[in-house]
Amino acid sequence: MSNSIGEKFKITSFGSSHGFGVGAIVDGCPANLKLTTEDIQKELNKRKPGTSSVTTPRKENDEVQILSGIFEGKTDGTPITGIIFNKNQHSKDYSMFKNTPRPSHGDYSWMVKYGNYDYNGGGRGSGRVTIGHVIGGAIAKKLLKTQKIEIISHVVQIGDIKAKPQDYSTIKKNIEKNPIRCGDLKASKEMEEFILSKKQEGDSVGGIVETIAIGVPQGLGEPVFERLDGDLARILMNIGSVKGVEIGLGFDVATHTGSEINDEYQITNNKITTKTNNSGGIIGGMSNGMPITSRIAVKPTPSISKCQNSINLEKMENEKIEIKGRHDPCICPRVTVVAESSTAIVLADHMIRSGFIHPTNLDKSI
Amino acid sequence: MSNSIGEKFKITSFGSSHGFGVGAIVDGCPANLKLTTEDIQKELNKRKPGTSSVTTPRKENDEVQILSGIFEGKTDGTPITGIIFNKNQHSKDYSMFKNTPRPSHGDYSWMVKYGNYDYNGGGRGSGRVTIGHVIGGAIAKKLLKTQKIEIISHVVQIGDIKAKPQDYSTIKKNIEKNPIRCGDLKASKEMEEFILSKKQEGDSVGGIVETIAIGVPQGLGEPVFERLDGDLARILMNIGSVKGVEIGLGFDVATHTGSEINDEYQITNNKITTKTNNSGGIIGGMSNGMPITSRIAVKPTPSISKCQNSINLEKMENEKIEIKGRHDPCICPRVTVVAESSTAIVLADHMIRSGFIHPTNLDKSI
Amino acid sequence: MSNSIGEKFKITSFGSSHGFGVGAIVDGCPANLKLTTEDIQKELNKRKPGTSSVTTPRKENDEVQILSGIFEGKTDGTPITGIIFNKNQHSKDYSMFKNTPRPSHGDYSWMVKYGNYDYNGGGRGSGRVTIGHVIGGAIAKKLLKTQKIEIISHVVQIGDIKAKPQDYSTIKKNIEKNPIRCGDLKASKEMEEFILSKKQEGDSVGGIVETIAIGVPQGLGEPVFERLDGDLARILMNIGSVKGVEIGLGFDVATHTGSEINDEYQITNNKITTKTNNSGGIIGGMSNGMPITSRIAVKPTPSISKCQNSINLEKMENEKIEIKGRHDPCICPRVTVVAESSTAIVLADHMIRSGFIHPTNLDKSI
Amino acid sequence: MSNSIGEKFKITSFGSSHGFGVGAIVDGCPANLKLTTEDIQKELNKRKPGTSSVTTPRKENDEVQILSGIFEGKTDGTPITGIIFNKNQHSKDYSMFKNTPRPSHGDYSWMVKYGNYDYNGGGRGSGRVTIGHVIGGAIAKKLLKTQKIEIISHVVQIGDIKAKPQDYSTIKKNIEKNPIRCGDLKASKEMEEFILSKKQEGDSVGGIVETIAIGVPQGLGEPVFERLDGDLARILMNIGSVKGVEIGLGFDVATHTGSEINDEYQITNNKITTKTNNSGGIIGGMSNGMPITSRIAVKPTPSISKCQNSINLEKMENEKIEIKGRHDPCICPRVTVVAESSTAIVLADHMIRSGFIHPTNLDKSI
Repeated sequence: MSNSIGEKFKITSFGSSHGFGVGAIVDGCPANLKLTTEDIQKELNKRKPGTSSVTTPRKENDEVQILSGIFEGKTDGTPITGIIFNKNQHSKDYSMFKNTPRPSHGDYSWMVKYGNYDYNGGGRGSGRVTIGHVIGGAIAKKLLKTQKIEIISHVVQIGDIKAKPQDYSTIKKNIEKNPIRCGDLKASKEMEEFILSKKQEGDSVGGIVETIAIGVPQGLGEPVFERLDGDLARILMNIGSVKGVEIGLGFDVATHTGSEINDEYQITNNKITTKTNNSGGIIGGMSNGMPITSRIAVKPTPSISKCQNSINLEKMENEKIEIKGRHDPCICPRVTVVAESSTAIVLADHMIRSGFIHPTNLDKSI
Repeated sequence: MSNSIGEKFKITSFGSSHGFGVGAIVDGCPANLKLTTEDIQKELNKRKPGTSSVTTPRKENDEVQILSGIFEGKTDGTPITGIIFNKNQHSKDYSMFKNTPRPSHGDYSWMVKYGNYDYNGGGRGSGRVTIGHVIGGAIAKKLLKTQKIEIISHVVQIGDIKAKPQDYSTIKKNIEKNPIRCGDLKASKEMEEFILSKKQEGDSVGGIVETIAIGVPQGLGEPVFERLDGDLARILMNIGSVKGVEIGLGFDVATHTGSEINDEYQITNNKITTKTNNSGGIIGGMSNGMPITSRIAVKPTPSISKCQNSINLEKMENEKIEIKGRHDPCICPRVTVVAESSTAIVLADHMIRSGFIHPTNLDKSI
Repeated sequence: MSNSIGEKFKITSFGSSHGFGVGAIVDGCPANLKLTTEDIQKELNKRKPGTSSVTTPRKENDEVQILSGIFEGKTDGTPITGIIFNKNQHSKDYSMFKNTPRPSHGDYSWMVKYGNYDYNGGGRGSGRVTIGHVIGGAIAKKLLKTQKIEIISHVVQIGDIKAKPQDYSTIKKNIEKNPIRCGDLKASKEMEEFILSKKQEGDSVGGIVETIAIGVPQGLGEPVFERLDGDLARILMNIGSVKGVEIGLGFDVATHTGSEINDEYQITNNKITTKTNNSGGIIGGMSNGMPITSRIAVKPTPSISKCQNSINLEKMENEKIEIKGRHDPCICPRVTVVAESSTAIVLADHMIRSGFIHPTNLDKSI
Repeated sequence: MSNSIGEKFKITSFGSSHGFGVGAIVDGCPANLKLTTEDIQKELNKRKPGTSSVTTPRKENDEVQILSGIFEGKTDGTPITGIIFNKNQHSKDYSMFKNTPRPSHGDYSWMVKYGNYDYNGGGRGSGRVTIGHVIGGAIAKKLLKTQKIEIISHVVQIGDIKAKPQDYSTIKKNIEKNPIRCGDLKASKEMEEFILSKKQEGDSVGGIVETIAIGVPQGLGEPVFERLDGDLARILMNIGSVKGVEIGLGFDVATHTGSEINDEYQITNNKITTKTNNSGGIIGGMSNGMPITSRIAVKPTPSISKCQNSINLEKMENEKIEIKGRHDPCICPRVTVVAESSTAIVLADHMIRSGFIHPTNLDKSI
């Protein structure tokens, strides 16, 4: 059960970095959504490595194929299977990691739990597995678009360098103009330089990614245990390397008083909104019609070429490790599309669950 | 489905602040666990209001009753129903909130979504609903104790006042000695004063609560979508007023490099541990045998007596609101037991799911 | 997890014959359904023992209480908890069954699986547990009635005595006129005599119960694994003593050819129906708009006063057993309300899942 | 959610008769199970058409590929994806069924529910979709074999021709010797002749398939709503064309008394068994250690070449239909492997759920 998420719009992810392929099944997407391979490929290209100085130079010419679920150009209500067949994944020798786990990398956890672990390229623990998230997210985004819901993720911090807050349309425009996918072009320059300097040292850096969803109607999320914020927190924390999740003001709420940050109601043009959005669009676990904002803390890539202390599991003794290879010095830019996808999956699921999208036939949606 | 959580150890919460009662059903607790009403009452007393200057002066002489699931002093594998019957809950008039929603409080969300909302005392949106969490958590803690797993939650920050880090046993001892449930006695004094000063202004304050679980074996959590960190993040974010969740270093990872915070492996006394615990006991979504640490950001109680802007839903015009009543100026001390309970529920569930505790009969556990 | 059923309209059953009480939580019933205690009591009275010569003479003055989920006479979207507190259940000594399991009764299975079993009155294995089904079913029936869906169950066979087929309205009228709840008044007389003759011999008899649901729209059920027939088969087979489930023609399909039993389509008054209903209203796992008909095989009550071979678990030797007490010689009449309730639960759940009833607010239903 | 089944050992089925392929993901199979493509292919060959006079002459040279989940010849705990790519499926014109639904076939149900239906070869409603069941079942059977559990399905009735009861090993041997997969070689001859005679008339016939599982330990199944009999009934009723499910004596219980069919306990060689097995190995919803026996009623293939009444959906008028093509005159022989697979899936799932097989690592199983 561990590889599925969602109640009505449900993703089952499969595959790993060195098997035949990697992909996802989307079950529960209503019929009659127009969907092409390009819709998915476009999103996958955003996470593709080898496209800039700050990501790994590895090339992955990943082309997605849709194996089921489409009839005459539209979804037909049956499971949509998207897959990328792996190519050239056996070029490198990973056997050194068989007995020497990489610090802060999941491989040792996998070994202990399952007893049979594909250490090649991280196996199912590899970042390549997020291809499944993106396939699911691309379909979710297409579905949400029919309801005028839009989602963007952008890098707001790398190390100590913070992006200046920008309005939604500026962010949307700017993230396509820099390899960091940062909404502030000036900060993006500094971020890039900082990443490259750490890369040269054989080190890696962390950062913060923000996601904004606009157009979400009031009333998604079901108290007490299927709240929208809880479901978002789960899927975002489930992304590898994420160590924190915030909604709205997040941890800043600790240092404020109620009178400072309560979101007061107002009526303008006969419409109820809140004057501020410190709640990040979610109150009482339910969306309130304001933009939904979240932030995730992304740790530095654990794979670094600097020498580290580890152990040899066979000999049961301490051993040094140096992880050579073409690893991302900072995965934040590539994480943006995974955060966007994950948010889209949760929102699509809740849109169906809450009755805004018909569960089986999009044409019957309100 | 919205009021249940857990796969094998499953809580279904019911009731509200002004109905007949509030409680929870625990389904999936293995048979043969010794369990008494006192085990649950003890935990409930920690969240009871009216016990100190910094919580609401309301008295709730809540006595839990177990209606099912116990035979001859032990669980029998059938659903355990715990309930507290409400008394004296109708003393106050809440009808003023029927048309004037309280800023940053969930009541307006409930009205819109369900169309029939018990505004009295916040109904199902009331903090009183967390009684269900605590009933479930008390049983989970008792079950975990048989496996030598222990959990404590404590307040580490109120406003800008931060507790000094303490070791586990000091925290455990100190939290019983101050009304803040803070592990640092000196800081707790400052926190108390700060809360009282804001209370006098008719305002409220936020803070941060940390939870530590020790004794958790290696191998809880199932990648890719039922990771332990994801499940913890969800249940913690589901607590009312929580706007952020961190595991281990949390948001601090953004400002560090891999070489600074990677948890290096070491062998000492033929046992594998990590030198540091920046991962907070979870790597690759699975527990690694180190203490599991999380922190949650708790917003200031939205109910404040200061005048606020709101609206009148009937007249559809702007309207001021002053929320009189005996509200907690800071809910962090009472949230500690909910965080502890929530963490216990997730860990108990995963202990069964991962095969450490037998799914139906505790006596058969490893 | 074992005590819950349903995806959106979800029942969690709790309690046993000799604890404090027995009941159910209904989670997922949309808000704004008018609901009173009487709606539930009325259904419970149908399964009440002590009302006729063919059921147990035990009296159970069961009065249900609703503990949560109703506000101002209507559901409010929160969990509805219904409970009957047990009275006078400790009158009899069941300790003889502690070591001597009753043939074809579940108690030995419970002992082995859970290791701590409340043998008093069958504990959670008692037929009294179906009170939870009926509470859930009563609410489901009320919900379905708003969509003009109606369900009746009736006894069609006891031993070799078969009821003559009757039309729906005749059955509905007749079942209230005889203690067997049979739609054919003549057959009901013979059935009653047959049951009483076997009762006198200290024996029990089996039978067949049919359920008919009318007004169900086309399109409930989701292939491939959440088909409507599969979900009905599960909930009906889950009723204690049921050993077979049929939809439509059932096992008779084995002896027919396709040309004999295919349900041909026809258009009459611009409406598409089938000329026959051998499919029992379900084709391809989905409802087709025709009445949904099912039949269940109910075994004779295993508790009989005739001497039977059993074993003594303590001494591990063979031992005779005679089960004295006031057991139903035939449970079919009382099973009718459980079959009706179970069918209602599945249909209510699928009505929400398929978008015919709004998931949270009945007033928004199509 | 409709295409998944199972809680711990979970199958997600995808694909249809005329897309790129058809297959299944098995999530939750513990690591360290030896598994090859041949293990799965062997089972698939049993349902392959074109192998005898009584099945369709269509040839499907279906070769399964495993895309993920195997490392060094053993499962690694990650999702196992098995797929058969479709070949030569576009040879025939199905467009005539676009507007004229086939009586008792699911296509009209699909059209109405989803609004976009791949009518080619029945799309996802095609029997070809059971390839997913068989892939899942093959893995389940391999897993069960490590626990000495074995399952066979055989045809016991076609039309009015019934197989004589045989012992387990005779059935196992005989089903491989005749195209009907019947355990009684004499009856199989008559069945074959009967099927061929109806085939010549352009008609089809129904029958009954029995499944026997031996070696199942005591204690599978969880009352009240996840009973083993309920879960078996669901998965078996979910097979296309099945209209009835029985456990043990099944519908025959109606005509017997308790004293006739109660399964009395006995101790032989210090082991507790029942003298008879009228319960079919399941009492109180839990396995009791005796062989688990079920029977399913399979309707005649709805696709027949005889002229039938149907309708034209476009013109909304009555219309005749003759379904030409190479359809199975009786699908019972091919259904045996689907029944076997479905039973295996449920048993594998419950073996993990009940703690007999370790949830993630087979080597740690009891």
